[in-house]
Amino acid sequence: MSKFLHSKFNSGSGLDPYDTSEELESMNGGYVRLNTNESPFEPSVNAIKAVRSAAGTLNFYSDPDCTKLREKLADLMDVKPSEIVFGNGSDEILNFLFTAFCEHGAVFPDITYSFYKILAKFHGVDFSMIPIDENFKINPEDYKNLNGKTIFIANPNAPTGLFLSLEDVEKIINQNPESLTVIDEAYVDFGGESAKNLIHKYKNLAVVRTFSKSRSMAGARLGWCMTCEENAKDINDIKNTVTPYNINAMTQAAALATLEDEDITQKNIKLIKSVRDNTKNRLREMGFEVTDSSANFLFARHKTVSGEKIFEALKRCRIMIRHFSQPEKIADFNRITVGTAEQMQILLEVLKRVIKNETR
Amino acid sequence: MSKFLHSKFNSGSGLDPYDTSEELESMNGGYVRLNTNESPFEPSVNAIKAVRSAAGTLNFYSDPDCTKLREKLADLMDVKPSEIVFGNGSDEILNFLFTAFCEHGAVFPDITYSFYKILAKFHGVDFSMIPIDENFKINPEDYKNLNGKTIFIANPNAPTGLFLSLEDVEKIINQNPESLTVIDEAYVDFGGESAKNLIHKYKNLAVVRTFSKSRSMAGARLGWCMTCEENAKDINDIKNTVTPYNINAMTQAAALATLEDEDITQKNIKLIKSVRDNTKNRLREMGFEVTDSSANFLFARHKTVSGEKIFEALKRCRIMIRHFSQPEKIADFNRITVGTAEQMQILLEVLKRVIKNETR
Repeated sequence: MSKFLHSKFNSGSGLDPYDTSEELESMNGGYVRLNTNESPFEPSVNAIKAVRSAAGTLNFYSDPDCTKLREKLADLMDVKPSEIVFGNGSDEILNFLFTAFCEHGAVFPDITYSFYKILAKFHGVDFSMIPIDENFKINPEDYKNLNGKTIFIANPNAPTGLFLSLEDVEKIINQNPESLTVIDEAYVDFGGESAKNLIHKYKNLAVVRTFSKSRSMAGARLGWCMTCEENAKDINDIKNTVTPYNINAMTQAAALATLEDEDITQKNIKLIKSVRDNTKNRLREMGFEVTDSSANFLFARHKTVSGEKIFEALKRCRIMIRHFSQPEKIADFNRITVGTAEQMQILLEVLKRVIKNETR
Repeated sequence: MSKFLHSKFNSGSGLDPYDTSEELESMNGGYVRLNTNESPFEPSVNAIKAVRSAAGTLNFYSDPDCTKLREKLADLMDVKPSEIVFGNGSDEILNFLFTAFCEHGAVFPDITYSFYKILAKFHGVDFSMIPIDENFKINPEDYKNLNGKTIFIANPNAPTGLFLSLEDVEKIINQNPESLTVIDEAYVDFGGESAKNLIHKYKNLAVVRTFSKSRSMAGARLGWCMTCEENAKDINDIKNTVTPYNINAMTQAAALATLEDEDITQKNIKLIKSVRDNTKNRLREMGFEVTDSSANFLFARHKTVSGEKIFEALKRCRIMIRHFSQPEKIADFNRITVGTAEQMQILLEVLKRVIKNETR
C-alpha cells in the first residue's frame, strides 16, 4: 500500500479486489468453463461482421450517446431512448447506482450477487442484508420500513437461480415509495418475467440488464439500465461527467447487430432452458438437491458427496464450476453454468464416476 | 433531477456532464473532424484482423489482467508488467487516480486538460490552479509548498501543445516529495520526452498514456498508467474492486496487434509531425499566431480575424475544429487537429478565403 493512498482505504478498508486467479486458470488451462455463467454460443455472424467493420474506423472516438444502439434497444424493450443508460458491463451500471442513489444506505438479500456488498463497502454506503428463507426464497414481507435505503434484488437471484414473481417485485416497490428498488435482471431472459415495463408506472424502480449472458457478449462488456427519465438523466450526467466515452465502438457495433439478430438470441435461450431442465432432472436422479433455476446455471448439492470433492474432481477433469464454501447457508453447493448439451453430457458422465467412487 | 440523487450532487454540484452535441454533429454531419485530436490513420490491418478474431469468442469474459497485452506493453515501455494499470481510456485512469490519491487536494495549471477540474469537483477534491505564464509556459518554480496535493501536468500540455522539459518535470517531482506528480502524456509521442523511466527513480510519479492518439484507437478506449509497484497495486486493487473486466476482449486484441505493428505507429507519428510543422509555417505566413506545438494539434489565433469567425466559417465548409471562447487567456484561439496532408491543404485553402473575405 503506497503512502499516497487515501486514508479511507487504510488497511484495505473498502477494497475487495476480485481474485482473478481462478478466472485466469480457467481461461488458460483448456477448461470447459462452467464457472462464470457465460453463453456457450458464439456471437452471430452479423455481430462478428459488424465488429470487423467498426475496427476499420477505430481511430475515431465512439459515439458517446450510443445513438443507434440506444434507439434499437429502446424499440426492442418498449421503453424510450431517454429511459436507458449504458455501462461498461452491468457492473459499471451498478457502480453508477451506488454513486448516485445510495445516500441513505442499501439493502439486499444475504445470499445474492456478491458485488452489491463490495460496492457498498467501496462507496462507504451503510448496508444491511436480509436473510433469504430456508428454501432460499426472498420474502417481500421482509422488505419493509427501509427508511429510504436503496434495495438491490437480483431476479432471478444468484447463485440460487430462484425467481421472484413480478407481483412480489411490485409489492416491494409499493411498500417502499421512499426507496429506489433496483432489479438486476442479468439472467431474466432464461426465466421469470422482467419488471422493465413497470418503469412507466413507478419512478422508484431501476431495472439492470446485461449483454453478457443471453446475448453472448461477456467479452464485449455492455450492460444497461432502464428507469424513469429523471433517474436516467442523473445517471447519464454522472456517466458524462466521469466517462463520456464509456462504450467503445466495437461493442456498440456488436450489440446493435446482436439486437438485429434477436431470433438467434431467442433460439439460444430456448436451447439453454431445455438443456438446463434436462440436466437438472438428471442431477436429481443422481442424488443431487437442485434448485428450480430460472437462470443459465444450476445450483446443486449432493446428498452424500461434499461440494468441494465434486468441485476438485471436476477440476481434475478440466471442468471448472464455481464452488461455495461460505456463507454457511449455501456451503457445500456448487453453481454450474448450463453449457451445450454435449458439455452437460460430459459433466454428467464425470459426476457419475465421482459419485460412484465416493459412495462405494 | 430525481429525488433519489445523493444530496452531494444537489443542484448539479459536482456534475459537469460532457456536452456531446458538437461531437455528435461532427460524427454525423459528414465533417472533416479536426476537433478531437484523433489520428487520421486507421488501425493497422493486423489490428483489424485481431479484432475480427476476438469477436468470435466474445461469449467469454475478457482477461481481467490483460495478460498478453500487459507483457507486450511492459516490454516496449521498458517497465515491469506489475508497474502498469489499464483503463477504459486514460479518462478512467485519471478517475482511478482521483479516487485513490487526492486526499490532500490537487493542483494543475489554469490552462490544461479540462477533465482534471471536472474530476476534482466530482470527487469533492479541493483543488487549485496555477497560472501558466504569458507565453503559455508552465514554470516549475510555481509548483512548491503544495502540502501533499497531487499534481496533474499534461505534457505536452493541451490545448497549448507546449512541452515541459524532462528536467523541469523532474524538478517538480523533486520539489514535492510528499506529493504524487501525475504526468499525463496523451500527446508525448508527437514531441518532447516521456517521464516513464523516472518511475524507477521516483515513487511519487505516475505517468498516464493513451492508445487514442498516436495509436489510432480512440474508438477502442484504452489508456494506461505507469508507476511504482506499490502505487500500481493500489490502483489495480481499486480497479479489481469496482470494475474487474474493464477492458473488453476486442480492445485487448486490437492493442496487442497495434503494439506488434510499432513500425506503422512510428511512421504515422513521423508523418503527423511533418504535416504539423508545415501547416504551422503556412498558418504563420497567413498571419496566425501559432504555438510551437509538440502534439498532434495546432493552437492558433489570427492577428485580425476573430477565432469565432474562423471556427464558424470552417464549420460552414464542413471542417470542425475546437474553438475556445474562454478562459480569457486563450479566448479567440482555436485548436486544430493535425490530419492528413490533404486535409490540411483543404483547411489552408478555406482559411485563405476566410481571411481574405474578412480583411478586405
